[in-house]
Amino acid sequence: MEGEFEVVKKYIMTPGPTPISEEVLLEHARPLMHHRSPEFSKIFIEVTEKLKKLFKTKNDVFILTSSGTGAMEAAVTNFFSTGDKVLVASVGNFGERFKKISSRFNLEVISLDYEWGDSANPEDIKKVLVDNPDIKGVMVQFSETSTGAINDIKAIGNIVKNYPAILIVDAISGLGASDLRTDEWNLDVVAGGSQKALSAPTGVAFISISDKAWKLNEKSNLPRFYFDLAAAKNYSQKTPPQTPWTPGISIIVAMNRAIDMLFEEGLEKVFERHRILALATQKAVEKMGLQLLVKDESKRGFSVTSIIVPDGIDAKELTKTMRVKYGVTIAGGQGKLSGKIIRIGHLGYFGMFDSIIVISALEMTLKELGYKFEVGSGITEAERIFMENNYLND
Amino acid sequence: MEGEFEVVKKYIMTPGPTPISEEVLLEHARPLMHHRSPEFSKIFIEVTEKLKKLFKTKNDVFILTSSGTGAMEAAVTNFFSTGDKVLVASVGNFGERFKKISSRFNLEVISLDYEWGDSANPEDIKKVLVDNPDIKGVMVQFSETSTGAINDIKAIGNIVKNYPAILIVDAISGLGASDLRTDEWNLDVVAGGSQKALSAPTGVAFISISDKAWKLNEKSNLPRFYFDLAAAKNYSQKTPPQTPWTPGISIIVAMNRAIDMLFEEGLEKVFERHRILALATQKAVEKMGLQLLVKDESKRGFSVTSIIVPDGIDAKELTKTMRVKYGVTIAGGQGKLSGKIIRIGHLGYFGMFDSIIVISALEMTLKELGYKFEVGSGITEAERIFMENNYLND
Repeated sequence: MEGEFEVVKKYIMTPGPTPISEEVLLEHARPLMHHRSPEFSKIFIEVTEKLKKLFKTKNDVFILTSSGTGAMEAAVTNFFSTGDKVLVASVGNFGERFKKISSRFNLEVISLDYEWGDSANPEDIKKVLVDNPDIKGVMVQFSETSTGAINDIKAIGNIVKNYPAILIVDAISGLGASDLRTDEWNLDVVAGGSQKALSAPTGVAFISISDKAWKLNEKSNLPRFYFDLAAAKNYSQKTPPQTPWTPGISIIVAMNRAIDMLFEEGLEKVFERHRILALATQKAVEKMGLQLLVKDESKRGFSVTSIIVPDGIDAKELTKTMRVKYGVTIAGGQGKLSGKIIRIGHLGYFGMFDSIIVISALEMTLKELGYKFEVGSGITEAERIFMENNYLND
Repeated sequence: MEGEFEVVKKYIMTPGPTPISEEVLLEHARPLMHHRSPEFSKIFIEVTEKLKKLFKTKNDVFILTSSGTGAMEAAVTNFFSTGDKVLVASVGNFGERFKKISSRFNLEVISLDYEWGDSANPEDIKKVLVDNPDIKGVMVQFSETSTGAINDIKAIGNIVKNYPAILIVDAISGLGASDLRTDEWNLDVVAGGSQKALSAPTGVAFISISDKAWKLNEKSNLPRFYFDLAAAKNYSQKTPPQTPWTPGISIIVAMNRAIDMLFEEGLEKVFERHRILALATQKAVEKMGLQLLVKDESKRGFSVTSIIVPDGIDAKELTKTMRVKYGVTIAGGQGKLSGKIIRIGHLGYFGMFDSIIVISALEMTLKELGYKFEVGSGITEAERIFMENNYLND
């Protein structure tokens, strides 16, 4: 599998972890401050305020030391009681995860299951809420990381706000890549992660909580300790503000710089950059004759592109060749899409030439594996999209 | 509060986070590998095997992305069922935490409560087990981080092995500083953390599980998802071995180097170093006329020294002066010892001159705050202890 040249530069192009800038890595490597010191508290407060700006919310936002799945568990376990009815709109592997967590914690799960690659229909959610006025919570993904589809959270929020249920949004891979407006869209609980569009190291998640959700929290009896958000709130109000348990200090310090970079670029520009990166990737692979998993263009998110592996090509061999020979790590499919798709992440500290690299590596790999297409058609199309969309002159 | 000189070098001398070596910080700053890549898997397997050597066990050891409290929650929630009876031997704040987690998850808690600064009496545990043969688990700290006391885990293990109950040991601040023999001492579940004697960044914990504990796991019905150890086992057996959820990649990579440093020094030497560091600190502060919280010398651990704040001195002012003026961060008391003690951590990447620094800073601070003692008596005693114990020639 190895080429003639020893130096194979490594590129990580998955939907998490995402590429991390050198300056964020240097922040990450700073000697650790104590988590109950005013010095760390200052950074903790700063990061929390910046996260609120990113979430576009005045709600509480708390930092959890865990992967995004921990924040999903926190979202499930802090607002309901045993036997409560919840609705999960599932469009992929992470929708299934909401169902599993809810079932494990003895909630009654009603589910709306969509084809993987499709998005949830807000009208379906409305119908279930009308038929089941006792539903306490609606759970849905913003960007479904396993497929790349995006849900219309604004429309869903506009529905759920009229019911007693709270709306829980897993925005882990979407937050920072696509515009999300927590308060304006009436999102009660929103979960995010350090390792996606923020482009900070893995290991920290965060969660926002609306007043409507806090009211449910008061009556909730599900068991929780490590992910107890009332404890997080209590400790955030101490002097100095802090976390209940020892946090991932070096990750939070890195995040502080990483979020600054998003704000320095300007959030609107960040979203536009992700839109063009996604478009270039998607148009390029279509030009190569490949099929996207998300058929409907309006349902394609900006964070990750899922490509159906063509007949006769082995998905594992494809990703392995890209990783070992070309140094480019992309992701395979999850759950029932395992072996059927590949996923290219294009979020976070990711630029135009990163797209060129991953499409170029994909072209050379597919050529080598015997897939018939016009070599160069993908990168040419990507270049065209970048120029046409004034990627640099926006 | 500020001195004349602008450069105040910073020293972290708390019982977690602990000082991290430059080479571990550089490892920590490496670009992230993908957590499902063979490249990361290799490191994941290596770290797991090294942790087993550190735990002195052939049992399964799993890495969790959380603080130590997450590993404590995993220890509580993976082996019991609702209403099960557990015994917590509590000698401080972290014993209380075991009680709280157990109560939150609806276990019936019997507790043996000792003075904070004392250790658990193994005979008391035996008596409770004899009187309550239906006890399913015994929970105890190895080193109680809030007091510095150490429990006789070997003796406790020798008792609990004869009962159906499993023995759960929070070894978070003790592991790597004092000898702990998971298999030889019959310890069923042992929890550790990245940020203590390992001297890696905060955010990762680990846990070992015996066959006796796995048997209970099969029948356990407590709700769990993020900390589900059966999921951790399942994913550890995949090709390549991995974690169920995205782990703290950069922390695990840093840990790999950090544990190597312990093995390069030699575990026996590491323990002896910690013994002398603790002894020097304890004898030095006694020479200064200060009282240790742990009266009985045989109950003093090697990880952290708790000192009673003398009458007339304000604990907060003491720690603040040390931190702001001298750059030396130590810890205050936790729970009911808040404001009553200070705690000096001397574990991990910590040497003789680190002890000299912290005692020197403590001397100058106490002098400034009006405490009457012979200035220099502490550091002189520390030097004497280091020389007498052949710290360098061992």
